[in-house]
Amino acid sequence: MKLWWERNELSYNGKNEIVFSDRIVQNLAEKLSTPLFLYSADRILENINRIHLALKNTDIPNRIFYALKANRFASLLTFIKTSTSCGVDVCSPAEVRHAMSCGFFPADISFTATSVSNADLDFLIQFPDLMLNCDGLSMIKRVGERAPGRTIGIRINPSMGTGYGSNELLQYSGVKPTKFGIYASELDEALALAEQYGLCINRVHFHTGCGYLNEQLPEWEKILTKCLLMIEKIPSVEAVNIGGGLGVPLIKEDEELNLSAWSAVIKRVFGGKSYEINVEPGTYIVKDAGVLVLEVNTVETKAGKRFIGVNGGFNLAVEPVNYKLPCEPVPCVLSESKEICFAKDALTPVTIAGNINEALDILYEDLMFPHIEEGALLAFINAGAYTSSMSSNHCMRGEFSEYLLLNSNH
Amino acid sequence: MKLWWERNELSYNGKNEIVFSDRIVQNLAEKLSTPLFLYSADRILENINRIHLALKNTDIPNRIFYALKANRFASLLTFIKTSTSCGVDVCSPAEVRHAMSCGFFPADISFTATSVSNADLDFLIQFPDLMLNCDGLSMIKRVGERAPGRTIGIRINPSMGTGYGSNELLQYSGVKPTKFGIYASELDEALALAEQYGLCINRVHFHTGCGYLNEQLPEWEKILTKCLLMIEKIPSVEAVNIGGGLGVPLIKEDEELNLSAWSAVIKRVFGGKSYEINVEPGTYIVKDAGVLVLEVNTVETKAGKRFIGVNGGFNLAVEPVNYKLPCEPVPCVLSESKEICFAKDALTPVTIAGNINEALDILYEDLMFPHIEEGALLAFINAGAYTSSMSSNHCMRGEFSEYLLLNSNH
Repeated sequence: MKLWWERNELSYNGKNEIVFSDRIVQNLAEKLSTPLFLYSADRILENINRIHLALKNTDIPNRIFYALKANRFASLLTFIKTSTSCGVDVCSPAEVRHAMSCGFFPADISFTATSVSNADLDFLIQFPDLMLNCDGLSMIKRVGERAPGRTIGIRINPSMGTGYGSNELLQYSGVKPTKFGIYASELDEALALAEQYGLCINRVHFHTGCGYLNEQLPEWEKILTKCLLMIEKIPSVEAVNIGGGLGVPLIKEDEELNLSAWSAVIKRVFGGKSYEINVEPGTYIVKDAGVLVLEVNTVETKAGKRFIGVNGGFNLAVEPVNYKLPCEPVPCVLSESKEICFAKDALTPVTIAGNINEALDILYEDLMFPHIEEGALLAFINAGAYTSSMSSNHCMRGEFSEYLLLNSNH
Repeated sequence: MKLWWERNELSYNGKNEIVFSDRIVQNLAEKLSTPLFLYSADRILENINRIHLALKNTDIPNRIFYALKANRFASLLTFIKTSTSCGVDVCSPAEVRHAMSCGFFPADISFTATSVSNADLDFLIQFPDLMLNCDGLSMIKRVGERAPGRTIGIRINPSMGTGYGSNELLQYSGVKPTKFGIYASELDEALALAEQYGLCINRVHFHTGCGYLNEQLPEWEKILTKCLLMIEKIPSVEAVNIGGGLGVPLIKEDEELNLSAWSAVIKRVFGGKSYEINVEPGTYIVKDAGVLVLEVNTVETKAGKRFIGVNGGFNLAVEPVNYKLPCEPVPCVLSESKEICFAKDALTPVTIAGNINEALDILYEDLMFPHIEEGALLAFINAGAYTSSMSSNHCMRGEFSEYLLLNSNH
């Protein structure tokens, strides 16, 4: 029996303990204490290499930019810099500084942000090699005033997006106008403004979705095609950044994104054009490469509902609460084999409650779960992205530690 | 003409500048730089004194515990400790330490939390005077094992709640079971458990709502009455903490909470009983005593929608995004009188966008707003609670500074 999330470097061993990147999670967590984030270097490499390979099959020149906001743990960033050819995409001056402090060169850094201030720009224009993408007319004008003649990218918005079903919280682009990018209605004005300041637009960037999987690929292809029409209005463009948004399975029912089908879309839309293709996955690279280990401190039935209380909350595991995205917990050790513990009639519904004194601090509701006792450790899988990087010290429950798990092959 | 939020220490002056606690906000923010939180010591005192006075009218012994999680800025806490008789309510060991570091004694501290770990309890039981409220059977048992014979409080849950309309995000108690407190169905078991360990229950605590205003008072009275039935099952109870939840107006249409009506409810339910009444407001004490000043860096129309970009996001102003609670911005300086600038036909709909590279980072949508230009400063009123205390460094946009504004009378 294989549980839906089990794979090469994340699975139960013969002693019913979770092994992650060759470590027994329970042993590690008992020594290092919780809340604890563990990141698998192997898995990060696997994820990056899978995208590399898929992009290679398009025969289009390409580069991956890791979306740093997903997880900016310094050791993880330095590992990506030294072990892969990835650059990073960042969205604030502090992220530029941080990327550089972890070893990235300005030429490795793509900057794509919104509501960018003059103080931000004064900092950014110091780095001529930094790939600076302008998010709108105001930013083009203010870059032009500061660095006339500079090479820039622009973010466009195709008024279409896909991913995570109809989750409104994640609509980067869509029918309703968002704050992001330049719409087709303003494109001519943007180009004229760039020309006025002698800015050369050699890159176009767009976000088109968030967490998309196979089902969304046909829609995604339509979006790329629509973007291409906008891009072709700008003859100076050399590189096209098609954004991130590649999803990973979050529940049993999700099917893994088929990267061959994904890259085939890219080839169909951009094959034969002379653009370099850039992608900037965050979630796809680190989400399933991280687990968050928390301790069960309370097991109690309240008014007929079974609550499992843990020593961390939505200030660490942000996505279940803020984005309604599942982050599934599994016991680090099972009392018996997984066949017995995860048998259908051994499971009962539980609600996982965090330790923040707020009603919405529920990490998972009505999850069918094996028997669990106070003192047990839970590993929240798919906790590598948008967790520590978005964490807060709300209720002063913000302490945690992070470990990059290397192996002898690194 | 008086704008809905204008009051004694927050209003436009004759030069059309916002004056807050005797300071011209524009001048201060230009010198100190933004993002900037300003807290009015005068307003904090006014808010506390208003509650004091209302409670005094009940002729019931009482004490206010400020809910520290709303805003834990150290100077603000020390000001409350030294200028009032308030204690604090906290919900983590780190908050206990912090309260003590700011000058509060253990006897000033009420601890009411959820998913409390054994490590938490080992810390907490060191302080015999700390008012330790148990959130469920598991906690009673684990406190009993560690500190048999100790005096404790219990949090009960009346399965009813009120406030902020039907905002599900803020349902501390209600028809659907939450993680909080002991329900009537488990009360007998809780009392037996306490007895088993010789724990004396001298306090009862309950949360019954969040942000309630006058309209909710009849419902709130029903809740208190229901709680009283549970409390009267415990003869050893000396103090009843009726929680916080007192709301403040967030939009023009909101009416100020009538504290005479509020305290009359308390008197009707608890008058003639022998309990001390405790309340633990957070929002009511600090929310309208704080403004967040941000700079407008982008004014731009995208696909027909007017966006105002500012140099802060939902990582600082958490409530508009995470709780759908309005946090209204107003220009720090008007180009003409407020009569002209806020005249109905001078206002146009704008959407205030933060600087976090995420779709949901919209601080206010379609707000009717006076003319504004890039470089202007905005004061977000009602930003004193659940802002800095919940802030994150998401996208590394987490920097801000905080100032307690004292006056010569302090």
